[in-house]
This record gives sequence, C-alpha cells and structure tokens, in this order.
Amino acid sequence: MLKIGIHGSTGRMGRMIIENLEEDLEANAAVLHAIETFSFAPPKEAIITDTVTALCEHSDVIIDFTLPVGTEALLEAAIKSPRPLVVGTTGLSEHQQNLLKEAATQMPILYSTNMSLGVAVLNRLVELASKSLREFDIEIVEQHHRYKKDAPSGTAMTLGEHAARGRGLELNEVRVSGRNGMIGERTKDEIAIMALRGGDIVGRHTVGFYNDGEFIEMNHTATSRNTFAKGAIRAAKWIVNQENGLYHISDCLGLN
Amino acid sequence: MLKIGIHGSTGRMGRMIIENLEEDLEANAAVLHAIETFSFAPPKEAIITDTVTALCEHSDVIIDFTLPVGTEALLEAAIKSPRPLVVGTTGLSEHQQNLLKEAATQMPILYSTNMSLGVAVLNRLVELASKSLREFDIEIVEQHHRYKKDAPSGTAMTLGEHAARGRGLELNEVRVSGRNGMIGERTKDEIAIMALRGGDIVGRHTVGFYNDGEFIEMNHTATSRNTFAKGAIRAAKWIVNQENGLYHISDCLGLN
Amino acid sequence: MLKIGIHGSTGRMGRMIIENLEEDLEANAAVLHAIETFSFAPPKEAIITDTVTALCEHSDVIIDFTLPVGTEALLEAAIKSPRPLVVGTTGLSEHQQNLLKEAATQMPILYSTNMSLGVAVLNRLVELASKSLREFDIEIVEQHHRYKKDAPSGTAMTLGEHAARGRGLELNEVRVSGRNGMIGERTKDEIAIMALRGGDIVGRHTVGFYNDGEFIEMNHTATSRNTFAKGAIRAAKWIVNQENGLYHISDCLGLN
Amino acid sequence: MLKIGIHGSTGRMGRMIIENLEEDLEANAAVLHAIETFSFAPPKEAIITDTVTALCEHSDVIIDFTLPVGTEALLEAAIKSPRPLVVGTTGLSEHQQNLLKEAATQMPILYSTNMSLGVAVLNRLVELASKSLREFDIEIVEQHHRYKKDAPSGTAMTLGEHAARGRGLELNEVRVSGRNGMIGERTKDEIAIMALRGGDIVGRHTVGFYNDGEFIEMNHTATSRNTFAKGAIRAAKWIVNQENGLYHISDCLGLN
Repeated sequence: MLKIGIHGSTGRMGRMIIENLEEDLEANAAVLHAIETFSFAPPKEAIITDTVTALCEHSDVIIDFTLPVGTEALLEAAIKSPRPLVVGTTGLSEHQQNLLKEAATQMPILYSTNMSLGVAVLNRLVELASKSLREFDIEIVEQHHRYKKDAPSGTAMTLGEHAARGRGLELNEVRVSGRNGMIGERTKDEIAIMALRGGDIVGRHTVGFYNDGEFIEMNHTATSRNTFAKGAIRAAKWIVNQENGLYHISDCLGLN
Repeated sequence: MLKIGIHGSTGRMGRMIIENLEEDLEANAAVLHAIETFSFAPPKEAIITDTVTALCEHSDVIIDFTLPVGTEALLEAAIKSPRPLVVGTTGLSEHQQNLLKEAATQMPILYSTNMSLGVAVLNRLVELASKSLREFDIEIVEQHHRYKKDAPSGTAMTLGEHAARGRGLELNEVRVSGRNGMIGERTKDEIAIMALRGGDIVGRHTVGFYNDGEFIEMNHTATSRNTFAKGAIRAAKWIVNQENGLYHISDCLGLN
Repeated sequence: MLKIGIHGSTGRMGRMIIENLEEDLEANAAVLHAIETFSFAPPKEAIITDTVTALCEHSDVIIDFTLPVGTEALLEAAIKSPRPLVVGTTGLSEHQQNLLKEAATQMPILYSTNMSLGVAVLNRLVELASKSLREFDIEIVEQHHRYKKDAPSGTAMTLGEHAARGRGLELNEVRVSGRNGMIGERTKDEIAIMALRGGDIVGRHTVGFYNDGEFIEMNHTATSRNTFAKGAIRAAKWIVNQENGLYHISDCLGLN
Repeated sequence: MLKIGIHGSTGRMGRMIIENLEEDLEANAAVLHAIETFSFAPPKEAIITDTVTALCEHSDVIIDFTLPVGTEALLEAAIKSPRPLVVGTTGLSEHQQNLLKEAATQMPILYSTNMSLGVAVLNRLVELASKSLREFDIEIVEQHHRYKKDAPSGTAMTLGEHAARGRGLELNEVRVSGRNGMIGERTKDEIAIMALRGGDIVGRHTVGFYNDGEFIEMNHTATSRNTFAKGAIRAAKWIVNQENGLYHISDCLGLN
C-alpha cells in the first residue's frame, strides 16, 4: 500500500488527483495537505494535515501542483525529511529551479509541466521525426478554449523546442507567430507556432512536417483535464522506485 | 458542338484548360489565342489566332485567365463583338472592374477569382453556418506551399468575408493574423486567419466554429491545380445559356 | 419566468439539464419529475413531483429524455393537459410515434434524437453540399468511446440520410460498413459509414466529398455530453412560442 | 558520377524516376532497360539496353519497380554480375523472396514496398508509440482514389504490423475491417483498419491511439506519386556504399 501525499489538495488539480486515486485499487491511501476547507468530500480514510512537514512525514511519495511559493516550501521541508516527489507546478523562478536540483541530490524528483503521457511521447516522436526528415518544413498549430490568456501554450513551445533540437536549431531564433501581407517565400528553418482559440477546447497540438510529395502531421488532443491527474499518479508510482536524481515524465515511459 | 475560346492559351492555366478540353467529349472544339509560341502541342483541329478580335469572332464562349491588361483588351473587343465570357483574372483595377460591369450589360459574364466548385460551395456553407451558429467562435487556417509569397490567401480572405457577413461583421475590423504573448481572453467577434506554409501543398482551407460542448470544422483541400481548369470549363458551358449580366461561380451551382 | 419541467430528472441527462438551468438567468424555475431519489442536490426552489399529471400542470414546457414507455406516459398525460414538449427519447415504437403525431395536433412538440445545434446545422449543410457537388464521392467516418455497443451511430446514419437525400438516393441501398480484400473500384453511388472506437471520445462525425482535384470534409466534434442538455434547453425556450404541430431541432435554428 | 540503371524504364514508375533524375545534379547518368518503346523522350545521354545482363554491366546501381517475374529475372542476372539493387516490386512469391535473400549475400539490396521516406519514419514512430502507450486503443484509417481495387492498402497493413509488434500482437489475429450492428464494446487488442475511397487521393494514412482523457493521431499524406520516385533515388545513392546484405528503406534513414 502506497501512501500518496497531495500537496494543495483542496484545489482543482488536487481534487482531480483524489478522484482518480479513489478508483485506483493499487494505491488506496491518501495523505492530504489542506490549508483551506474542502469544497468536496475527501476520502474517509485519508490523513489530513495542514503543514508540509507533517505531509512529508506521513507520505511515501508526494504530488505537488501548486504555486511556485508552495513548491518552494515543500522542497525546503523535503530536504529535512526526504521523500520522492512529483512536481507539476509551472513558473518556477531560477532560485526555485536551483532548489529543485539541490533537493534532487537527496531524493528522486520527477518534474514536468505537462504530466500527460501522450504529450511526453509526442515530444519524443517529434524530435525523432525532425532529425530523420531534415528537408521537411515544420509548422505547429495549438488550440485552446476562449479563456486562455497567453499564447502559444507552454506545451506548444516544448514541442517546438523538441522539433528545433532535432535539427540543431534554437526555437527562439526560428519561431514565427503570425503571417500577414507580402511575407515572401518561407525560409528553410522557420517554425511557425500558430495559436487558435475558441469554445471549450481543453488542448489540441499538431506538429506538421511538409515536403515535396508528402507530409506528416502528428496531433495530440486532450479530451479532459483528467489526463493530467492520471499522469501524475502514474509518475508517483514510478518515482518511488528510483534512485535520487531529477527526472522527467518521459523517463517514466522508458523512452529515453 | 461548343467552340470554346482560350484567351492566353500558351500560359500555364491555358495549357491546363486545353488538356481538360481534350478529354471532354461534349466540347471538342477550341479556339486558341496565342501571342507566344506553344511549349506544348496544341490540339490539331484547333483554330489559332493572335488577336482578341478574331478570338471573339470564332468562339461561342471565351475563358480568360490572363493579366489585368489582357482582360481589359478582351473586354474592349467583346463590347464590339459580344460573347459569353468566363473571367478568372485577379487584381483588376477599379476601372477594369467598371469595364467588366459595363460589358456585362451586353453579354453574360461569369467573374470569379477561384473557379473551384468546392470552394464556391464552401463559401455558401460557411455563411449559412455563421448565421445559424451565432454563439460559436470562428477561426480559419489556410495552408499553401513554401513558395507562396503573400498571406493570407485570397481564398481564405473570401471565406472570412462570408463568415463575417453571416453575422453582420466586417472582416477587416475583426481579423487577427497571429497571436503571441499575454493576449488576454479571446474577444467574441474576432476571426483569426492563420497562414501555414510548407512543402508543395496546393491549397488547404479550414473554417472552424467552436462553442462550449461542440465544434464544427469545414475543410477544403485542392489536390491539383487542375481543379481550377475544370471549374472554368463547367462555367463556360453554363454561361452560354444565361442572359446578359454579371455572374459568380456560385450562380452556376444553383446555390443562390 | 419560464417554468421548465424535467421528466425523469433523476437520470444522467436530467441532472445535466438541471445543472445547465442553474446557470441560466432567463429560466430559473424548474419543475422536477422524480420517481427515484436524487443522487445529487436538486435546486432548492424547484417543485418536485412524482406524477406526470402534476408535472404537466406545474410546467410551462416539459423536456423528456426517458425511455419509450416514459415518453408514452407523458404524451397520454399531456393530451389531457396540453403543454409544449421537447422530446429526445430514442427507440419509439410505431405506436408511440403515432401517439406523438396525435399529441402534436393539440400542442407544439419538438422531437429530435440529437439535440446538438451543431449536428442539426451539419445535417442541413451536408444535404446542400450533396446536392451541389453531385460528382463527388461521399464517405462518412464516425468515432465514439470504447464502450459504445452499436455501430454506426444514429447521428452518422442521419447524416448519411441527408447526404443520400441530396442526390435522390436511399441510404440503405448504398451504404457500405467495411472494405476488405479485392473489392474492385468504388461505385459512384456508394456511401461508406465507417465506425471507429476508442478511448473516451464523446462523438466525432466527418462527412467527406471527394472529386478529382479537390475534396471537402465537414467534421462535428462533441467535446462534452453537456451540449445535448444545452440544445434541449434552447429548444424548450423556442417551442413555447410555436403553434401546435410537430417540429425538429432544425426548425428552431431557422434553417428550414 | 553515379550510373543509375532503371529496370522497366518505359513504365509509369520508370518515367517518374527518370524525370527526377534529370533534375538531380549529383547523379546525372541513366542506364535504361526498355523492352517496349518509350511514350516519352528519354534523356539524350542515357544508355538504353533491352537485356538485364547489359543493364547490370553498365550500371553502378539498379532500381527495380516491375512485376515479380521481372524482379526474378533481374536477380538471376545480378547473381552472375553483382550490383547494388533497390527493389520496390510488390507481390513477390516465397521462391522470389528466397532468391532475394540469396542474392543479398553477394550484393547490397534494399527491398521496400513503399519508398516514401515519410512512411518509413511513420512506421518507426508508430511502433514506438504503440510500445509506450500500451493502454491506448489503436485504430487506423487509410484513404485512396476511387480506382483502387484492393483494401486495405499494403502501407496500412505495414503500419498495422508495426502497431501490433509494438505490443507483442499479431495483426492478423486482431485486425477489424468494418463495424456494423450490435457489435458490443471494443475489445482491448483489436486494431481496426478502415479503408475509405474517393476522388483522386494519392494516399492518406492515419494511425490513432485513444485513451481516457487524451489521444494521439499520426497522419501521412502523399501529395504526389513523385514521392515514391524520390525515395527510390535516395535509396539508390545510399545502397552503393553499403556492404552485402538485405536492407529496408528505414535503414537508409538512420532510424534503426
């Protein structure tokens, strides 16, 4: 029986992870860190605590989808009481990223801003395709719901980085975000990342490779946010058996 | 037997129309206007002439894919010797467009910058959908080969105009051509027209309508430039039976 | 204030309709017919009843997504106490369909097995396209989650019927459901409806029109079952202003 | 300067290879095997021969897209006068396949029934994805022009084999080619390969991986048959530098 701790368990992502754990026969114990009241009924048998120290002490592994300051507090507590960690928080500062690396010398930590297994696999496939199909032009399209405020998505940027890396390019030197007017012929290396918005689309990403006579398009579609919770739980079960060090979601797929 | 005249028959589009006419059992006579030598073998039985006046006199109907000055010369000759016309030339000036309207009082003229039947139908469907699905967000993606110098394509702009018209908007007030950075939530009326470039794509256009819970995407793909030649021939056969006036490719489909 | 009655409000579809009504400022009164206990909290201000007679008396309009026997009981009660009805129940017998028509002489009834606005619009567009693009080959692909037991979906069949009707064909004479081995060249009139299954796909339907040189593909994707609840509520608001008679979801879109 | 021999150079595929060679500055010498007259003008500087023996003697490498008996004759001649070979002929008998293996002990031979680089890469990516995403349901759709007589395409079958191999399955035990009626829930291992037909589609193949919450779709589209000729030439340039043995198009991409 694996005791999975959820840091910030009262939030949207915390709730999703808890719901998925309840359906999970292998890992049926939860340790919940809650500093707000629950808007839903937490599992009856769960241990509930309001300090990260207690969270560390009671858990075999901890999942963290919080804000940068929350992750920082967790890392500081974990350095004193090492536990395997799965961190999905976005927007970490340089200081916080260094703290993450330092902590990873004392415990295994998986850090990834997209826990979807499909996206992790796609990143790998895109890099391979980019390397094998050097003459093909690369274009990326991402689509999200009408309320998303930034563009392009972090996932699209990461896909673009894998595409660029496959042929020795730097994404920020070749990225295009729009085309209008007399733009001239397409340059060989440019990679467009176009952002579409509308409706309630959870997330669609397409990476296309185009050449004379043929093209390949690889698409990932998230049909529910639930997929990110499932990815985090799979990662948690995997990280408990790893040695100290910093890992990525792709490591737990055996792709690297 | 219909004598179909081809204005500017030595060009790329002229050649395609001739090749399609040869396969056409119903309309097996061609009258070719040529001021340059042919880089291919014209049909043996064709009448070849180098003046627009002779072209008009020998033809039952004339197809024109030339340059604006060529179309102007043809219209001036046709006013003296009226013949049904199919005009696909792009970039006509205001003077030339007025000349077209004036000529259309004396002969039937079909004028359209995209002779593909599929695109004509799609324009109609997009306007209908836009009107019926007022709450849906509209986004358009077009894709062409790596050598295309302008963006977005004229066809994408026309599709956007039909989409806008369906809900009483002006495309140039709501069009978006790229998204990058902290752009904020999508506004209700905006219509993105994103241009992708790569490989040897002849032309792909997708108009999407996105709402909470569902979306519709309508795509047109041209698999060969031949489709524009076929559309022009179908238009030529149709225009000979019409009364004087100015027509569009959509009229010959019975959609209006 | 419109009092919307929900027949069978304790079921999955009833719950979705109630949730949507709560977010709806225009129609904030619900009359709930419940013969089982609720697995969720119904709105506080709702009138709850366990007879269809009381449901009819307290409601301005009634939405019914039940089983054929439930719809039959509702229709019999409504004949005595006429109310505008929105019926989405599938699998009505011939007797029940006749009862529906009889009831529609005394009250306005909207009957449709798919309440999605997008699908209603798509049906209309498909029929138009089929008529305008007579030389194009038609192929349909539908996709649903791995638990769906029948194929093809009712929605795909209805799309196929609209496609067939557009060119004077009977779907059951031209439908193909698989291709394997030396099948020979495609016949002009055949319409394949291919069923894909997998994952948790709510519903994707694509109708394609293919010709030499070009093709059009029209896709509808349901991103959540919620869309069917929203469609039913929109239909309910519309049907209250109609005269007696039998209507379809497409009537309330102004497409016919 | 590489002397590239074309076995069966008067056929459709032979002509395409010749046209591509003419545009190719690196390899500007052709040795053409012709037993019929050319319907087009062969390159002026080409050596033309009507025996496979002479073809072998004059060529540095030979490309063969013929019929099984043609390939058999070529292999028998090559055993006496070994030359690097690129063979794209389909439908080889068991005897002919054994002959191929025997010949490969004396010269390097690349044998592949689809010379498209994109398809070779896709096969590799599909196997990787199948292995990494074991819980995902796999479905394949292929589409070709209305004149194709068999289904599914050889390329779709090969993609299916790679998908099956990725999770230790035999395609012929799990393949589904149609779905109709009360088929019950999808079984975990089944792989549908659905064949669409229509218009002038050169070839589209989509391999989809579907799970709860997300799916991946990988598509390859051939925009012209030319892509197969280009692949064969690239293979020819590569095979001349290899040691004796039997190779596949994927070997020349550095993917294996």
